[in-house]
Amino acid sequence: MSDQIDLTEFLFRRLHQIGVRSIHGVPGDYNLTALDYVEPAGLHWVGNANELNAGYAADGYARIRGVSVLVTTGGVGELSAINAIAGAYAEMAPVVHIVGTPPTQAQNGGVNLHHTLGDGNFRHFAEMASKVTVAQTNLIDAATATASIDSCLQACVSNSRPVYIELPTDMVTAKVPASALDKPLDLSIPFTDEGFEDTEVDLILEKIYSAKQPFIIVDGFTNRYGITEEADELVRVTGFPTSTTPFGKGIINETYPNFHGIYAGLAGNQIYNPWAYGTDLVLRLGPLNSDVNTYGFSTIPDRHKAITFDRDFVEVTGTKYTNVHIKSLLRRILDRLDKNKLPRQEPYPDLGIPSEELKALPATQPQDVIDQLTFWRRISTFFRTGDIILTETGTPSLGGRDFVLPPHTQLINSSIWLSIGYMLGAAQGAALAQRELLAEGKQSQGRTILFEGDGSLQMTAQALSDIIRNRLDITIFVLNNDGYTIERWIHGMKAGYNDVQPWRYLEAPNYFGAPKDDPAYPVLTKRAENWGQLHEILADQQLQEGKGLNIVEVMMTKEDAPDVLKKLVQAVTKRNAGADKQAVVDDKAQTASG
Amino acid sequence: MSDQIDLTEFLFRRLHQIGVRSIHGVPGDYNLTALDYVEPAGLHWVGNANELNAGYAADGYARIRGVSVLVTTGGVGELSAINAIAGAYAEMAPVVHIVGTPPTQAQNGGVNLHHTLGDGNFRHFAEMASKVTVAQTNLIDAATATASIDSCLQACVSNSRPVYIELPTDMVTAKVPASALDKPLDLSIPFTDEGFEDTEVDLILEKIYSAKQPFIIVDGFTNRYGITEEADELVRVTGFPTSTTPFGKGIINETYPNFHGIYAGLAGNQIYNPWAYGTDLVLRLGPLNSDVNTYGFSTIPDRHKAITFDRDFVEVTGTKYTNVHIKSLLRRILDRLDKNKLPRQEPYPDLGIPSEELKALPATQPQDVIDQLTFWRRISTFFRTGDIILTETGTPSLGGRDFVLPPHTQLINSSIWLSIGYMLGAAQGAALAQRELLAEGKQSQGRTILFEGDGSLQMTAQALSDIIRNRLDITIFVLNNDGYTIERWIHGMKAGYNDVQPWRYLEAPNYFGAPKDDPAYPVLTKRAENWGQLHEILADQQLQEGKGLNIVEVMMTKEDAPDVLKKLVQAVTKRNAGADKQAVVDDKAQTASG
Repeated sequence: MSDQIDLTEFLFRRLHQIGVRSIHGVPGDYNLTALDYVEPAGLHWVGNANELNAGYAADGYARIRGVSVLVTTGGVGELSAINAIAGAYAEMAPVVHIVGTPPTQAQNGGVNLHHTLGDGNFRHFAEMASKVTVAQTNLIDAATATASIDSCLQACVSNSRPVYIELPTDMVTAKVPASALDKPLDLSIPFTDEGFEDTEVDLILEKIYSAKQPFIIVDGFTNRYGITEEADELVRVTGFPTSTTPFGKGIINETYPNFHGIYAGLAGNQIYNPWAYGTDLVLRLGPLNSDVNTYGFSTIPDRHKAITFDRDFVEVTGTKYTNVHIKSLLRRILDRLDKNKLPRQEPYPDLGIPSEELKALPATQPQDVIDQLTFWRRISTFFRTGDIILTETGTPSLGGRDFVLPPHTQLINSSIWLSIGYMLGAAQGAALAQRELLAEGKQSQGRTILFEGDGSLQMTAQALSDIIRNRLDITIFVLNNDGYTIERWIHGMKAGYNDVQPWRYLEAPNYFGAPKDDPAYPVLTKRAENWGQLHEILADQQLQEGKGLNIVEVMMTKEDAPDVLKKLVQAVTKRNAGADKQAVVDDKAQTASG
Repeated sequence: MSDQIDLTEFLFRRLHQIGVRSIHGVPGDYNLTALDYVEPAGLHWVGNANELNAGYAADGYARIRGVSVLVTTGGVGELSAINAIAGAYAEMAPVVHIVGTPPTQAQNGGVNLHHTLGDGNFRHFAEMASKVTVAQTNLIDAATATASIDSCLQACVSNSRPVYIELPTDMVTAKVPASALDKPLDLSIPFTDEGFEDTEVDLILEKIYSAKQPFIIVDGFTNRYGITEEADELVRVTGFPTSTTPFGKGIINETYPNFHGIYAGLAGNQIYNPWAYGTDLVLRLGPLNSDVNTYGFSTIPDRHKAITFDRDFVEVTGTKYTNVHIKSLLRRILDRLDKNKLPRQEPYPDLGIPSEELKALPATQPQDVIDQLTFWRRISTFFRTGDIILTETGTPSLGGRDFVLPPHTQLINSSIWLSIGYMLGAAQGAALAQRELLAEGKQSQGRTILFEGDGSLQMTAQALSDIIRNRLDITIFVLNNDGYTIERWIHGMKAGYNDVQPWRYLEAPNYFGAPKDDPAYPVLTKRAENWGQLHEILADQQLQEGKGLNIVEVMMTKEDAPDVLKKLVQAVTKRNAGADKQAVVDDKAQTASG
């Protein structure tokens, strides 16, 4: 009988095989028996306080580790998490959502069970999930279950998007062949015809060699398509002036002399933008063409001047070549690139070097208020190689565009879904992934650092409990500006609906049950009301090491905002009023693609 | 031009007309301009910390006031709340969900906007919502908008279920005729043919007169169908032995001598159950046939012995009469009822009187631990006429079945959706509705009292912030039994996944920013570790009056549970293991109906 194992044992051991080490989720009566298989499979149960936070955390964990798992109960649990799954879909985070469902015969019989709408229809929630996941399976047949799971996991990783697996309670112990675990799951993206790609390599190299004013824009899906190394090499080897988008920030080494920070289009500075519009070739990698990521579509280049490397196609100056294996294509371009044929711009354009701009800032005085204009740049001196830095939607994600990042840091922001509260949950997942990477020796150093707004924090505050429960090392800067400042700037600067209840943010560890005076898990809470206090806090050894739970409340004034917010808001406001009809109709580039 | 008003002015003034006084929700950039119309319409903006809690609160408010409103932003906001909307659908709470969406031309153009999946399809979320709402409208045409809104509101109230209204940002100020507000919205359920009902009245009266051992079961949808008064009168006038279901508890006056508490079927006592199975006529009002509400379907009577009053049909001993106006039908039955023809059981069956069982309990000793077996009954002496009492899913909702309620109290529990965390949000909505009713003189006294589990509280803790922000009067008993005790009983008594992070629950007011020493909003936090402490706390004047925020942490042992939980769990566990095939296949009564 040892050649048979329980389906759920297969499921969790398979997840371990593909790199998962922790399972996020919340118990519920339709998933309890399945949870018995988590620890025996060598997996850590995170035990989140609620499902939305569990989903956000699974997303954050996936962005660092390449795949993650969320377990909820059917109906109530899965719907509480569906916003997080939608975000993972929109921003391409590979999350495996396992939903414990009622037993198959109760479903087939249309029984009036709790956690249903009472109409005997057990398909409603799976149908909702199908809109925000790339693959779905309902494990109702032991004969096909292992293949269905494998197929779902492949879809999850290769598309870098969430999948949905229903596990009825009576199938938890269904028997499947143990041998199904023997063959490792192939998660690579299949290669396509090499000859076909050669044509494109020639064409692309030709365009690169003949460019007069080339430009590289690295975007966030670069990471999802597994071409981060190739992107970095392209930037380094060509020496072309390079920017990232907000979503792409952190993917390439920002210390390269040809890196010039984020290209901000209409919201950018007066030198960069005209230069960027004057380029004759833009190499775009892994683009996300959302309004927020492209500064109201103003950084999307004319397709006839661009070579765009997307998930499974490359578009060369207006012509689209599909079914391309993007990683191998880039690899061959790099391998065959003849440096001597690269165009040289002399003198190299003066587009600004973020690290020099940081150095040029005047010193702060101890009593100076902490301002949005310089905070984001100045805080960069706190960052170290290996850090994972997260910026919540709102002033942090806009301000964080000014960060000057050391090499081998990772930045997580949200650039299309923008669900406030996401980042605190994601930080829990990222900190857990970080701890695992450090323990496995895959990384030698690094902290998890979150910049969180006060309004956002309130959305998902119990993620702090999850952080404490799992004894995760994290430093959280709570930017307290007394409400939804980003929304004040969009509309209703003085409106009561943009206020939030003023919490005593530094009481969080106390409320959420953090240990007191436990050297194994130190807790630090400090408030900075001016630059003097902030500098002193940043110098603290515990913060420098990033051990334990550190919460720094940074007091900012209510109506202060990063410069880019002020500029960006003008564009968003215009669109919401329906005033930019012309732009919407004219520019095909800004319409979404599937 | 004064004969034209903005569409959003119409919307919020219309909502005021039908009885809404407060708007729950969270601001977001697609709804900000709409929020400008809330206060001018005479409505209070609640300003919730997150959308799920806002949705839960709207549901709680609707159960007390008859209708409520939730405002979220599109995509992220609405999906965060969709679990609450699904619960409102399953348990019939009339919530109007207004979603601020991007401007119509951006939607029509498939523009790649934030808060979307980036695929240019703006219908995904409305399609999801259509599964959990009874009516939907997208306000894209000013010419039809007011009629569409009216139609949605009618559907909401007459079905007592949520509806979904999309308001694109550019339509906020669309002009509509001010006269559309002149005619009040007719929210009554249309009458059907009177002659048709007369036949049924005769038939039903005949069945009642000829019954030998009649029985009344009042269920929770009685309230939703607007027949609470008729139900109460039926119980009073007939004097028939009467029970409620868990969901129906609190609807009729529990001090009637013929009220015998909840009929618990297989989980009930040894006298009541055989008697109930021996009845030859069961009058069932507003039934919800879910597993949890019917003790694993064991309290659903044989249809051939039952007269079931449902939303728009009555089923008389197996024959269904549709298109019935249930309220007028019941009214006519009561008007024509001849008391002299009613059957009398002599002697009246000895089925137990809850208030007498309460009195018969032995006195507690000060050092006694607070046990689940008697806590729920004993705490009943704390209740007063006018109180709204809420019991969270888990040990509270099961334990609360033992309450002995004074007249004119309202009980809110969940009997099919069972989303833990719901009740804390709902309590915020209920407390707000209660305050409004008191202020309007519709009620002369009454407190809002919540029984909350520790695991549940963690799900939605920031609802406490909403309570504080709105200065709501509420008393919360936090039953701290160190984890998900209901789930321990279902599966995994010692399993780590049933643990929760131990919070310092009494620190909540401090963390969430409650005022300190403000006589206008007093805050009380106390812990009861034994009966002596609990009795002392309950005698506190502030708790007796129910003013301000009162949190009482009641310490219970980890594996203690109400007796009914232990019994019920056996049934649920059996079903989840797929072991009750026979029951599922045989009994049509337990399958869900639409």
